[in-house]
Amino acid sequence: MSSERRDALENHLGVDLQNTGSFSLNESVAGKLNCENMIGATQIPVGIAGPLRLRPESSVTKEYFVPLATTEGALVASVSRGCKAITESGGAGVSVEKVGATRGPVFRIKNLREKKMLEEFLNKNFKNLQKLVRKTGPHITLKKFDTTSAGHNFYIRFGFDTEDAMGMNMATFATQQITDFIFGKTGIKCLSLSGNYCIDKKPSWLNFTTGRGFKVWAEIVLPKEVLQRILKTSARNFYNVWLAKCMVGSAISGSMGFNAQFANIVAAIFLATGQDPAHIVEGSLGVTTAEMLEEDLYVSVYLPDLMVGTVGGGTGLATQEEALSILGIKGGSNGKNSEKLAEIIGAAVLAGEISLLSSLAEGSLVKAHKRLARGEKI
Amino acid sequence: MSSERRDALENHLGVDLQNTGSFSLNESVAGKLNCENMIGATQIPVGIAGPLRLRPESSVTKEYFVPLATTEGALVASVSRGCKAITESGGAGVSVEKVGATRGPVFRIKNLREKKMLEEFLNKNFKNLQKLVRKTGPHITLKKFDTTSAGHNFYIRFGFDTEDAMGMNMATFATQQITDFIFGKTGIKCLSLSGNYCIDKKPSWLNFTTGRGFKVWAEIVLPKEVLQRILKTSARNFYNVWLAKCMVGSAISGSMGFNAQFANIVAAIFLATGQDPAHIVEGSLGVTTAEMLEEDLYVSVYLPDLMVGTVGGGTGLATQEEALSILGIKGGSNGKNSEKLAEIIGAAVLAGEISLLSSLAEGSLVKAHKRLARGEKI
Amino acid sequence: MSSERRDALENHLGVDLQNTGSFSLNESVAGKLNCENMIGATQIPVGIAGPLRLRPESSVTKEYFVPLATTEGALVASVSRGCKAITESGGAGVSVEKVGATRGPVFRIKNLREKKMLEEFLNKNFKNLQKLVRKTGPHITLKKFDTTSAGHNFYIRFGFDTEDAMGMNMATFATQQITDFIFGKTGIKCLSLSGNYCIDKKPSWLNFTTGRGFKVWAEIVLPKEVLQRILKTSARNFYNVWLAKCMVGSAISGSMGFNAQFANIVAAIFLATGQDPAHIVEGSLGVTTAEMLEEDLYVSVYLPDLMVGTVGGGTGLATQEEALSILGIKGGSNGKNSEKLAEIIGAAVLAGEISLLSSLAEGSLVKAHKRLARGEKI
Amino acid sequence: MSSERRDALENHLGVDLQNTGSFSLNESVAGKLNCENMIGATQIPVGIAGPLRLRPESSVTKEYFVPLATTEGALVASVSRGCKAITESGGAGVSVEKVGATRGPVFRIKNLREKKMLEEFLNKNFKNLQKLVRKTGPHITLKKFDTTSAGHNFYIRFGFDTEDAMGMNMATFATQQITDFIFGKTGIKCLSLSGNYCIDKKPSWLNFTTGRGFKVWAEIVLPKEVLQRILKTSARNFYNVWLAKCMVGSAISGSMGFNAQFANIVAAIFLATGQDPAHIVEGSLGVTTAEMLEEDLYVSVYLPDLMVGTVGGGTGLATQEEALSILGIKGGSNGKNSEKLAEIIGAAVLAGEISLLSSLAEGSLVKAHKRLARGEKI
Repeated sequence: MSSERRDALENHLGVDLQNTGSFSLNESVAGKLNCENMIGATQIPVGIAGPLRLRPESSVTKEYFVPLATTEGALVASVSRGCKAITESGGAGVSVEKVGATRGPVFRIKNLREKKMLEEFLNKNFKNLQKLVRKTGPHITLKKFDTTSAGHNFYIRFGFDTEDAMGMNMATFATQQITDFIFGKTGIKCLSLSGNYCIDKKPSWLNFTTGRGFKVWAEIVLPKEVLQRILKTSARNFYNVWLAKCMVGSAISGSMGFNAQFANIVAAIFLATGQDPAHIVEGSLGVTTAEMLEEDLYVSVYLPDLMVGTVGGGTGLATQEEALSILGIKGGSNGKNSEKLAEIIGAAVLAGEISLLSSLAEGSLVKAHKRLARGEKI
Repeated sequence: MSSERRDALENHLGVDLQNTGSFSLNESVAGKLNCENMIGATQIPVGIAGPLRLRPESSVTKEYFVPLATTEGALVASVSRGCKAITESGGAGVSVEKVGATRGPVFRIKNLREKKMLEEFLNKNFKNLQKLVRKTGPHITLKKFDTTSAGHNFYIRFGFDTEDAMGMNMATFATQQITDFIFGKTGIKCLSLSGNYCIDKKPSWLNFTTGRGFKVWAEIVLPKEVLQRILKTSARNFYNVWLAKCMVGSAISGSMGFNAQFANIVAAIFLATGQDPAHIVEGSLGVTTAEMLEEDLYVSVYLPDLMVGTVGGGTGLATQEEALSILGIKGGSNGKNSEKLAEIIGAAVLAGEISLLSSLAEGSLVKAHKRLARGEKI
Repeated sequence: MSSERRDALENHLGVDLQNTGSFSLNESVAGKLNCENMIGATQIPVGIAGPLRLRPESSVTKEYFVPLATTEGALVASVSRGCKAITESGGAGVSVEKVGATRGPVFRIKNLREKKMLEEFLNKNFKNLQKLVRKTGPHITLKKFDTTSAGHNFYIRFGFDTEDAMGMNMATFATQQITDFIFGKTGIKCLSLSGNYCIDKKPSWLNFTTGRGFKVWAEIVLPKEVLQRILKTSARNFYNVWLAKCMVGSAISGSMGFNAQFANIVAAIFLATGQDPAHIVEGSLGVTTAEMLEEDLYVSVYLPDLMVGTVGGGTGLATQEEALSILGIKGGSNGKNSEKLAEIIGAAVLAGEISLLSSLAEGSLVKAHKRLARGEKI
Repeated sequence: MSSERRDALENHLGVDLQNTGSFSLNESVAGKLNCENMIGATQIPVGIAGPLRLRPESSVTKEYFVPLATTEGALVASVSRGCKAITESGGAGVSVEKVGATRGPVFRIKNLREKKMLEEFLNKNFKNLQKLVRKTGPHITLKKFDTTSAGHNFYIRFGFDTEDAMGMNMATFATQQITDFIFGKTGIKCLSLSGNYCIDKKPSWLNFTTGRGFKVWAEIVLPKEVLQRILKTSARNFYNVWLAKCMVGSAISGSMGFNAQFANIVAAIFLATGQDPAHIVEGSLGVTTAEMLEEDLYVSVYLPDLMVGTVGGGTGLATQEEALSILGIKGGSNGKNSEKLAEIIGAAVLAGEISLLSSLAEGSLVKAHKRLARGEKI
């Protein structure tokens, strides 16, 4: 029980963990599925932004209130402003492409001859591998694979569809079955179930260029009037900041993030909805673009590497499930809910970009932070 | 009040937000400093790993219990096992170098002549800038700056010491003063307070190669006996997995993370102790090394970009403050507490690397996850 | 005529260009196909290394003498030593995979709807595009395409087989036809025939992870005796340098080259055989691996981005054609000659890695350079 | 003698190497200093572009004719057009910053304690190291060093001034003396004279962000009239292509080259003037910017990593020396000549960017290549 551990810790260290012990989540489940040696729970404030109007390629226009778990003052206010600008401009166009979870084991090959042999084996046995994966569970499908090698290291990147789950556990288990099968048939041994060719929870160009989880695009045309009234800026000023910061600035800094603050919004929604926080790393990759249309402004975001789900992991915890219910996407729905979550994140990230870049363009960033810290509205 | 917003949302959407409304943190503070439009709090389970013994370069050997906020089953168990291996091997050597918070505004220059002029101005006025920054608050010091430029964009990266605070807000405010000063004296205008030459919350080679926040190193020699008894592996098997995954695998994937799972441990401690979760992105950068010493094993980690603090941001929230108290580093202490936090994270990240790479080496990763999901101990 | 331009320049500047005017290449061809405003030719010394034994996956074992055009003392000697080590160890295993030339135009799309539309158009019309390309010439085939987009920019990467030609001119011309066709059918305009999604003559992770031109692998097991007698080193010393330099050193330097000196060997063969010297940039990407097999040593190289050909460009010039004839691969041969060239470069690059890493391992680099500068043999 | 080797090769392989044997360079020098096992020389056509007007920050406005060694048709014509546009627009502003040659050995440290010790040793002994380097020759000065480490690998990047020489040989020799000194005083052994922290002849973010050799900037304002008459384009069309290609296109391709064709021009001047062709790799890094000034156009280039010299290496060969004489920078001049070479390359690279981006903007790239191949003027 967490209370016993907590008591022991309090006594041992002479500290007070009263708030950590104050939680409503179901410990008997969480302590088993989510967190070993549990001593309680941490509380992260949740704010609400919105309504945020989405115009998805694949479904009807709809408005959402977006839950954001954060401890950084001004973030919710900033996203709210962006949501307002988007919604009053007609809503964000959004489009997603499911790439799926990937797992990239590394095998040990003896030489280039064995490399050729293993490649041929994989090509010939792809359907067998798909059947094998099918047997590991009803919610996972093997979609494709790629290979590469360097010396004795042979890497395979398996791509899966895992419906509404982010899916890394399923993918890992399925990959274990595959590697056992390969070893049984070829005698070629899997050195490690993950050879960082997945590549999981690390920034990487492989994920950026080929995608992982979901690729998400969101876009909006902000009329001059919205730019002035809500964002207190002009198309030109916004554009100039975007170019100097998100393009040239990121280029000369050797970044994989050609954006203003993807990570802030991704983090806040991830925490609220029970996503794996280590995947914030991958969610920070991507590109914001801006373009002046006379005095209106086109803004877009592209997130190539968004690992999200609505079942599994932390999504089943009480508060996280409530956040998903706010978005109307609690639980499984043949992949529709996770896709919807990706769309919402894309549009919310767009809102964050719009708001921050406007602040920077008008030199109001410091003022906003100061006022918020005094409890004023912005 | 959050309850009113929550009620309104419940009524509007027909959802139940009871758990979100169940929190013990001080809403009147959190709603002002940490989160606008607050509707409640999300609960993230906290587990405890340790004891974890540290042997810092700069102070005495000490043991810590490490609070980890996570929803990913097996993580706490995995880190615990790594802590045990480290502690029973005598403790992790740790070393930190404070780089400090950086802010990188972009200025608009007319031509190369103005570039030269601005460079000279900065060199001549560095002490004046330091004085200016000193006036903005007692806890911030301007330490250095670097510049670069491309076309009309001139970037300056200011480096600050902000004592025990992670410091981005202080740094931003100070940078505003500096840019105003520069404009007043030279007429050269700051286009944006951040030109992504900071570079904040994005993976970047600039931060990797020059450091940001803290650079942290941790290392350990694991005797053969510990490898066998606790980690169920051998030096050779561990080493082979490390090389194929963290080195060659990360190289061919175009990653900035030459490691196994930095992000998982960084995320869990960041959430527990009130760090900015968007900085997990930067904390995922870095290198793990391994080396066989006959049948013993040397393992090290290097994190070049760890943005942490023990005051400000989320560190003052009730549960987060309790987590810091578990580590004995609550509040300010002339920079000592944040440095200690960096050391602890370094050693905990080392524990995570040791445990995961051992699991991969022995093919026990899937088994461990399955057993933990059934509530078994590992 | 070059002599007139040369005379004019000599008179105008008061310089002597006698040697520049001393060449045997056919000016009437070169001045038209290879170089406008020709004033003569530069002479670059060519040395010969080898014999270098190759054991290709796809054909018989054979030995080659490798022409190297260079002005850097010690390079030919270094490669020669590596060739000797390889040949006396039985020859380098080599394997190539033809990826082909790529061209990546950028189109201007209005919104996400048009993105979907263009994607569908491409998928439906791939065979039509192939027919279109077929009409542009007998030596080019459209093999595949990939797409990506950010904002209003839609990128397509077309992959071609161009037989024995490196093929960028053919690929560019074919892409022009394709973009005209797309515009005609969809009204979507090509903004630029190259949108750097090719990506040509720049280091890039896209080319590294997906390949361009040829992917080449080469490998060798060096027996202890060869290591001692020819390379004056041991497996262990070589391995330690490789790991610290090509792996960890390149990682912390943010490099795309996890190797010792790919660029030197690639440059020397490119210049000798008339390849485009700007493609040396792409040829510098890749990974060297090493592994101790008791006291023997396994070494491999992987070059993912080797743009070479045996027809077109500079390959038809007199001296360059002679260099190709030394290798027995002059002119076109249904793609066989360019593939052979890729294999030879792979093996020669392996020779260069072996020799330089051995020198570094034994601390003999400086000595070798000094002795060579005095005309001694090594 | 090269003739004997050539004869032997001709007989052995049954090939004709007559043109390879037709050269005017001084074999007795080249065969000793530049190329072992010499069999002759390869001939690369040299064309002339210009006049190219430079307006350097540090000296007077001057015009140059630029020698370009290339086998790629259309390149000289393209650069010539860019030179014309620049010169008729008043000349390119250019600015250089000398970073110098770097060499980055790797040392083997036992633990973090030894890391601290070695850092302190270096800080205390910097002046001693400078004296040591001074003794190795009159043309080399140790300017600075940086360090980093991962595990047992400790890297030092030494930065040197080598006057008019590119300087890698001098730097390597001096570094050998330094590492011997360090070992003598501390017992800490240099594992490899190069640990890829130099980092030489590989694309790397370390060199991009901190510079190597020379950092070069060049810029120009092209009036509307020049854009129309010479470049056949408009500011807007040029700008749109630049943004989609050099910024967004390079970003999504994971490139270190945010430009159109740096490598082509760098390669052509490097070959003509006897630079090390493997350094083309580093010269391909950098950023082009463009900006509309009403209907005029500002264009700039920034090359952070240009390794060039006017003495040593291939610069002393007959034809290469003639090319340097065309530029008026033959031989040594206390660093002035190499600086001038860097400036000229910067401006010529700017010319190349202007011309190619104009061609792309007007869709005339294919046409230009076709016409040139027929011998027409453009």
